[in-house]
Amino acid sequence: MSSRVVVIGGGPGGLEAARLAADLGQPVLVVEKRESLGGMPISANYAALTHGMQSAEELSNLLIQGATSRPNVEVRANSEVTAVDGAAGAFSVTISSNGADDTVEAGAIVVATGFQHFDPGRETQQYGYYEFPDVLALQDAERMLKENNFVTPSTGKPPERVAFIQCVGSRDRQIGNEYCSKVCCGISSKQAIEVRQQVPDSRVFIFYIDMRMYGYWENEIYWPAQEQHRVNYVKGIVTEILSKNGRLLIRGEDTTMGRPMEIPMDVVVLAVGMEPSQGTRQMAEILGIPSNQYGFIETVHDSLDTVTTTVPGVFACGAATGPADLDDTISSAGAAAAKAVAFLRSAVGTPA
Amino acid sequence: MSSRVVVIGGGPGGLEAARLAADLGQPVLVVEKRESLGGMPISANYAALTHGMQSAEELSNLLIQGATSRPNVEVRANSEVTAVDGAAGAFSVTISSNGADDTVEAGAIVVATGFQHFDPGRETQQYGYYEFPDVLALQDAERMLKENNFVTPSTGKPPERVAFIQCVGSRDRQIGNEYCSKVCCGISSKQAIEVRQQVPDSRVFIFYIDMRMYGYWENEIYWPAQEQHRVNYVKGIVTEILSKNGRLLIRGEDTTMGRPMEIPMDVVVLAVGMEPSQGTRQMAEILGIPSNQYGFIETVHDSLDTVTTTVPGVFACGAATGPADLDDTISSAGAAAAKAVAFLRSAVGTPA
Repeated sequence: MSSRVVVIGGGPGGLEAARLAADLGQPVLVVEKRESLGGMPISANYAALTHGMQSAEELSNLLIQGATSRPNVEVRANSEVTAVDGAAGAFSVTISSNGADDTVEAGAIVVATGFQHFDPGRETQQYGYYEFPDVLALQDAERMLKENNFVTPSTGKPPERVAFIQCVGSRDRQIGNEYCSKVCCGISSKQAIEVRQQVPDSRVFIFYIDMRMYGYWENEIYWPAQEQHRVNYVKGIVTEILSKNGRLLIRGEDTTMGRPMEIPMDVVVLAVGMEPSQGTRQMAEILGIPSNQYGFIETVHDSLDTVTTTVPGVFACGAATGPADLDDTISSAGAAAAKAVAFLRSAVGTPA
Repeated sequence: MSSRVVVIGGGPGGLEAARLAADLGQPVLVVEKRESLGGMPISANYAALTHGMQSAEELSNLLIQGATSRPNVEVRANSEVTAVDGAAGAFSVTISSNGADDTVEAGAIVVATGFQHFDPGRETQQYGYYEFPDVLALQDAERMLKENNFVTPSTGKPPERVAFIQCVGSRDRQIGNEYCSKVCCGISSKQAIEVRQQVPDSRVFIFYIDMRMYGYWENEIYWPAQEQHRVNYVKGIVTEILSKNGRLLIRGEDTTMGRPMEIPMDVVVLAVGMEPSQGTRQMAEILGIPSNQYGFIETVHDSLDTVTTTVPGVFACGAATGPADLDDTISSAGAAAAKAVAFLRSAVGTPA
């Protein structure tokens, strides 16, 4: 029997779960595939976080420091979980680092392997992501905004007109992602504000089906975006992006005005949705956890338990279980830590 | 010094926090103002829960049983916290039950005092909630649906036409509630499905600004509502409800069709939003926790900490901190339990 919690994934959810499980008295091992901790906000160079607009790097560093400062948290970067044997209370977790395998004992496991950005080339070639240099995805825009260098890639000049297209890879039966990715409305609106701040002469448009600015995102982001930053929201569907006279041309329908539209743009940002990361798919398979039809990990009891999986001793948090914003991830990571440690207390006994 | 966690509020968040804090080894006292545990889903007679469509009563009983079955959880119903003295690790909590005061020691406090439904009479008299018996609020519809008796109140007959009006008391500067209440789109859609199931001959309309069916609500509720249950979604604003020939008449604008509308209805359900409960306002004052401009309790660090308040040793979860769905509440309750117990471990030491 082992009192150790193995946390798979060193992004925001994994770091928060690790810190809390450690503060609840357990030894914790964080296994991270990448070279560095921090997960998607760091590896994809996010600028400011939604909501709050604080630096993603600064906040990620707080999370990293929170976990790594605990004496009972060990981190293995450049490492992958390749096999799990045994059962709850006494798992044998095989970790592969630089081609060498090692096995550690674990009493409980928290899967925090997160999401990947939808690939906007897949079945959505009408948006020309791999064809036109000035068509970006959200994460490309994040990197440029973080570098304070939001330009039209093909010219290197500040864009005059920027469009965001919502629901790329979400709410889409043809692609198979019927779910809403939850965060893209907020992230696009946050980026729109940042573009207006960095390129004050730009005009920024967001083409949407429904603006899902739930809870405080409404008053903290959506209203200021419109009132203070003059972001233009257009309820409309963009069906096609063309290149014309060295500029992008977006075609579609303004559904409020009830008329077709054809508007020149310098930069178009595709608000790509969330899909389960490769790691999430791999861990579901290795651990034998059922996934839903989209490949996200299923938890046992819908609303009443957001973190417990059907495999005893295995918990999941954050975007490994489905579209999640940072608040969701931090909350469910806390719940996963609590449930993993409570499970260990009943299975293994109170730690010494 | 005390190792006890006092949880204020016996709804879903309080019950989940209590159970987990107990499973993490602390003695827990739940203080509930009402006669019974279960919070709003029980006291307001909710039918099925959003999402999942399971019986609110059955799921609430699971939560109640989860907390009350722990030997280290004590419950005081019909009781209110009227004063808190001392400081983190050694709070003195005064509890008033049936006119008699009692003081208990607590090391940490979790505030789980939730929300109240927006009063649709306040500044929205154009909807005639107190004037027309056939104008309901979401919670009125819940009660009727739970009793499997969804009728037109003035006639007692099954309604032919039912309308839901979204964003009543939310996204509204005039009322002062600029935030989005997050759950009303999902709850209205769930109720619309239930109405269609209980009154198969009815036609059901939902008038909305944006349908905020985030995450899995999109594929689990929104698509089935339209495709299987033939609920009609109309992007439009209802400005007025009148009574005409013994029936309701709703007036407004269909913003997609770009034309005014005037439609007779038998029943109109106002999708009222969330406001902080009286208990949430009282506890913020008694504990000296800052609230935001809407009266919800503020946590310390935006996305990075959804439960820690600025008062050491005091945590909050669920809708006490702002609009929250049941998943949010269960996750943040887990996080609050983890952080309260971690705090006690560092302040008071490991429980014996």
